[in-house]
Amino acid sequence: MKRGFGSDNHSGISPEVLEAIARANTDHALAYGDDEYTKRLESLFKETFGPEARVYLVFNGTGANVLCIDAMCRSHEAVVCAETAHINVDECGAPQRVVGCRLLTVDIPDGKLTPQLVKTRLHGFGFEHHSQPKAISISQPTELGTLYTLEEIKALADLAHSYDMYLHIDGARLANAAVALGCSFREMTTDLGVDALSFGGTKNGLLMGESCVLLNPALDNDMLYRRKQMTQLGSKMRFMAAQMECYLETGIWRRNAEHSNRMAQLLRAEVEKVEGVKIMYPVQVNSVFVQLPRKVWKRLQGCYFFYDWDEAADVVRWMCSFDTTEDDIRSFVNVLKEELCRK
Amino acid sequence: MKRGFGSDNHSGISPEVLEAIARANTDHALAYGDDEYTKRLESLFKETFGPEARVYLVFNGTGANVLCIDAMCRSHEAVVCAETAHINVDECGAPQRVVGCRLLTVDIPDGKLTPQLVKTRLHGFGFEHHSQPKAISISQPTELGTLYTLEEIKALADLAHSYDMYLHIDGARLANAAVALGCSFREMTTDLGVDALSFGGTKNGLLMGESCVLLNPALDNDMLYRRKQMTQLGSKMRFMAAQMECYLETGIWRRNAEHSNRMAQLLRAEVEKVEGVKIMYPVQVNSVFVQLPRKVWKRLQGCYFFYDWDEAADVVRWMCSFDTTEDDIRSFVNVLKEELCRK
Amino acid sequence: MKRGFGSDNHSGISPEVLEAIARANTDHALAYGDDEYTKRLESLFKETFGPEARVYLVFNGTGANVLCIDAMCRSHEAVVCAETAHINVDECGAPQRVVGCRLLTVDIPDGKLTPQLVKTRLHGFGFEHHSQPKAISISQPTELGTLYTLEEIKALADLAHSYDMYLHIDGARLANAAVALGCSFREMTTDLGVDALSFGGTKNGLLMGESCVLLNPALDNDMLYRRKQMTQLGSKMRFMAAQMECYLETGIWRRNAEHSNRMAQLLRAEVEKVEGVKIMYPVQVNSVFVQLPRKVWKRLQGCYFFYDWDEAADVVRWMCSFDTTEDDIRSFVNVLKEELCRK
Amino acid sequence: MKRGFGSDNHSGISPEVLEAIARANTDHALAYGDDEYTKRLESLFKETFGPEARVYLVFNGTGANVLCIDAMCRSHEAVVCAETAHINVDECGAPQRVVGCRLLTVDIPDGKLTPQLVKTRLHGFGFEHHSQPKAISISQPTELGTLYTLEEIKALADLAHSYDMYLHIDGARLANAAVALGCSFREMTTDLGVDALSFGGTKNGLLMGESCVLLNPALDNDMLYRRKQMTQLGSKMRFMAAQMECYLETGIWRRNAEHSNRMAQLLRAEVEKVEGVKIMYPVQVNSVFVQLPRKVWKRLQGCYFFYDWDEAADVVRWMCSFDTTEDDIRSFVNVLKEELCRK
Repeated sequence: MKRGFGSDNHSGISPEVLEAIARANTDHALAYGDDEYTKRLESLFKETFGPEARVYLVFNGTGANVLCIDAMCRSHEAVVCAETAHINVDECGAPQRVVGCRLLTVDIPDGKLTPQLVKTRLHGFGFEHHSQPKAISISQPTELGTLYTLEEIKALADLAHSYDMYLHIDGARLANAAVALGCSFREMTTDLGVDALSFGGTKNGLLMGESCVLLNPALDNDMLYRRKQMTQLGSKMRFMAAQMECYLETGIWRRNAEHSNRMAQLLRAEVEKVEGVKIMYPVQVNSVFVQLPRKVWKRLQGCYFFYDWDEAADVVRWMCSFDTTEDDIRSFVNVLKEELCRK
Repeated sequence: MKRGFGSDNHSGISPEVLEAIARANTDHALAYGDDEYTKRLESLFKETFGPEARVYLVFNGTGANVLCIDAMCRSHEAVVCAETAHINVDECGAPQRVVGCRLLTVDIPDGKLTPQLVKTRLHGFGFEHHSQPKAISISQPTELGTLYTLEEIKALADLAHSYDMYLHIDGARLANAAVALGCSFREMTTDLGVDALSFGGTKNGLLMGESCVLLNPALDNDMLYRRKQMTQLGSKMRFMAAQMECYLETGIWRRNAEHSNRMAQLLRAEVEKVEGVKIMYPVQVNSVFVQLPRKVWKRLQGCYFFYDWDEAADVVRWMCSFDTTEDDIRSFVNVLKEELCRK
Repeated sequence: MKRGFGSDNHSGISPEVLEAIARANTDHALAYGDDEYTKRLESLFKETFGPEARVYLVFNGTGANVLCIDAMCRSHEAVVCAETAHINVDECGAPQRVVGCRLLTVDIPDGKLTPQLVKTRLHGFGFEHHSQPKAISISQPTELGTLYTLEEIKALADLAHSYDMYLHIDGARLANAAVALGCSFREMTTDLGVDALSFGGTKNGLLMGESCVLLNPALDNDMLYRRKQMTQLGSKMRFMAAQMECYLETGIWRRNAEHSNRMAQLLRAEVEKVEGVKIMYPVQVNSVFVQLPRKVWKRLQGCYFFYDWDEAADVVRWMCSFDTTEDDIRSFVNVLKEELCRK
Repeated sequence: MKRGFGSDNHSGISPEVLEAIARANTDHALAYGDDEYTKRLESLFKETFGPEARVYLVFNGTGANVLCIDAMCRSHEAVVCAETAHINVDECGAPQRVVGCRLLTVDIPDGKLTPQLVKTRLHGFGFEHHSQPKAISISQPTELGTLYTLEEIKALADLAHSYDMYLHIDGARLANAAVALGCSFREMTTDLGVDALSFGGTKNGLLMGESCVLLNPALDNDMLYRRKQMTQLGSKMRFMAAQMECYLETGIWRRNAEHSNRMAQLLRAEVEKVEGVKIMYPVQVNSVFVQLPRKVWKRLQGCYFFYDWDEAADVVRWMCSFDTTEDDIRSFVNVLKEELCRK
């Protein structure tokens, strides 16, 4: 399948990551995270996120999000999030089934929560008939490719803490956000008071590498058991740790994210020149959401795989990846233009 | 860490499997199993297990077992299994949390259920106060390294079906069983009436490759959603499918399992010559359970990592792997002899 | 505590119901619903709702709703309901914890779903990342005291069935709806294609009497076990059945509901004469929602217990009961007027 | 149905209790436990069990047990109990579904745990693959009608606390135990270090009255929400509180329990005179377990309802109730003798 704009998890593995896996493939290592690779990674996460950070490697983003929610909430509590949040829309109800809690959603056009919006869901405290709000969850970048500024994250963290609640970031693409904002991971999370983080690398060049990172040590209770019981404990964990170590230490996270972000800017720039295509949101990371005539995007899907985002509104998503090339974009835009002419 | 006898998931990746991952690392592939690798693998499982077989790739053995149980049972139903079963002992209550069902355990010395033993748990049908027995689950090989004959499996399948129940096999090491019994996977499962199978490759040379295989098509209801909701859907699934394809197609499963079984026989033979060490169970696959003086096994653990199996009884487990060498065994037995002398 | 307008479950037990309990208090009866009272009640429900109706007595409205949802949905499925629905707002996440499913909510001013509104949540079918819509749940009357017409219910049932979904009614106050619409229970449910019904009597004169009524026999699978496992099986069920039998057979349901509805009309009429109080919704059953100055309703709560419904909007709820008297209303309105003057 | 020996929940309501319900049936009361009856009851439980005791009224014994377990354990933890325990055998897997935890069962002839037996299940602490033992649960009296002495309970409490675990008593029939042992409720629970108690009255003359009593205040976290979310919050709670108040204050609990215990002794004495019937366990409270020829007990069930306890062993249970009369016993024993003669 040729390279397209379907998703950043349609791309493969960065060569350095594959080499790291191969390098880790020597002799024996203890399973389930008791190996030296995982131990080194735990130190590396402390260097990266601060000395209180605790990392739990898991298999996928859903696992990371559900484990973070499990660390923050009991079943009678609730997480405030955007209607568009991955935990709400794209996990088939995993938080409900595995944690048993409620999500209190806010319907917002750009996928970004604000303290004011969150406050509309903060009521019923102490009323036993209502699920008790206990966490705020945001995605950075959002599912719509928009970004929270550091100040905006800080404001949400402060709000959360003022209500004895926690702030969680779904950071499946946190690297893209970090390079876009020109800040470190720590500056975007720990330093702002973020309590729990789903930190992912799969969409940015790993074979598989996701994690639940607890930045607030008060959340770190029995998490080894919780991860195991929810089926997210890997056996040959050295190969997951080796990937993540390579990702963080060699700067691949930065290189890959810078590249996919730059490709999205190129795609945006090229598409802006094309009449009949409307860019829906500010392009801040590696995705471009556009509105275009139905017939056109339907035909375009015949050549390139991509998702309609809001079929009723004729909005589709084009996602750039660490391996997207300038040629890929030019070819794609050419086909787009042809299809628009055929209209 | 030097090669030892701790577990078959302490070993790494077979070189061919690593190459298969590298070969799959070209261009883009659809995520979540819509890729050509997974499609090919689905056909390969039909060839291997029969045309009705449906495979769902998952991350680990716990995921495979829980997904199989979820396919067979609702929460008010129950699974009859050995007290020693992995689903009972070693999954931190994952079936209880994720499926919500009961396990009805039978305490047996060699880890092998019989129809007679299972029948002791088959009562209370139609009585709403009791969880309703709906499945029998066996491990092949058992957690104690023993094997069911084909006739024994058949008898359990027949019993299950006569009660409108299902038979599940936890086959995390099914390859070791197949080479030991000299039969195909299909002859040991589908042909005997097995309804659901956890089929694993991680312990036999894969980086990560486990699966829920539904042999009885009546069980295949909404399993795509069920897998996703229990957090077991992988994104870059092509790399899991490519491993499993390599495993099945090139015969690595057989080569690796034959080797680890043979190494266990060598270890058994060497240990039998040593006075003061008692072999606990017939060595039928790749593990050797022995009883030896506490001081000796405790000191031995200083040189080699391995698990005590029943600390009170001074029984420990030595597990051979696809990469165990004859030299490994000789060195190990030499150290064992030295420690026994020091006693 | 004097009679007020807090809730229709602040009132007590209709004298006839207490007598029915006393009459059932002779000698022994089998427990858990195997008694003759429950058997008679099962027949009575068939007479009332049609020969296919199956009733499961439970303890409370939450139990009835969760058992109905459990009959309709597995955990990866979802229920479409109003944002204001009791199952969404007032059950502390019981559906999420006990069934594990998602609720897909629609934000609507009058608490009434329409086919058009429901359709906005009917997408993602067949997409494993999304919870699959499987039921529509409405409250009749709604939590805002509004009513669906028979045609409106029929339209929702038809919509549900056209998507292979089910229609559920939360009928904690179904009697109030029936007398307001001048129809039988069956005409409002079974005859329109309703699949599952939470039918309650506690708010209308019973000590305790709620039920899950399955009108669609395809839903009646293993419900005895499901009720037991979710902790909703009562032991001395004869006393619950005797209440419900009395409720349905003697026409108390009608008398009580007519009375509380009439009292609400009287309250509405009296309040309409008072300046400074705005009636928010059509008064169709036994509740009156009004908007009035904060200082006034806060002071009024010093004399009478009632709930603020939307504190930010200064909307409060006044609920009439089967034992509300005309004097109660006149006294209350007099105090209201005094408080308004003191403003 | 004539009075028999099926179960103590086949009997009805003590007249005083029915009167207490009627007395509470005046005017309005707040719902969900905010009423004066429930407030008084909370004080009464503090008087009865000590100033730290917190009571949560629930609907049934399953609800009480599951709420107690929920207070003690998270899903990755486990409860050690007898194989015969009600929570293990007779709740259709409610603890597994609602709490998600494991039960670690001990198979014992007389249903009584000992520290030595419990210790056989206390291992794997700190090992993430194993559910972590966190509570011991005993039934007092046991399901077999046997009793723990105060010393035996104390020893189990001490053991539990030495492992940072809790001790729970399923006291569905605690009154029968208290009168048999001649001690107060407090002497049998709080004073011995019991942490959580399911305290029931339904089987001893109430219409419905069960409760989760937390004696260890460290367990009292968010229990109002937990009770609500598991569907166990009653609306017109005054009528449950009024029953329980009457039960405790007027001494009905003692009178009724003394009577049913005495009737069991009479039954035992009469049966001992009959040849061909073997009494299985010491008769210490209100049940008599006997072994007798299958044909006899099968025919006897034609005249009197009672449960076979172990069908294979021809053991049946005869249970006396607060309303059992001496005539009931004489008539029953006469029929028994006749059936034995017909053998």
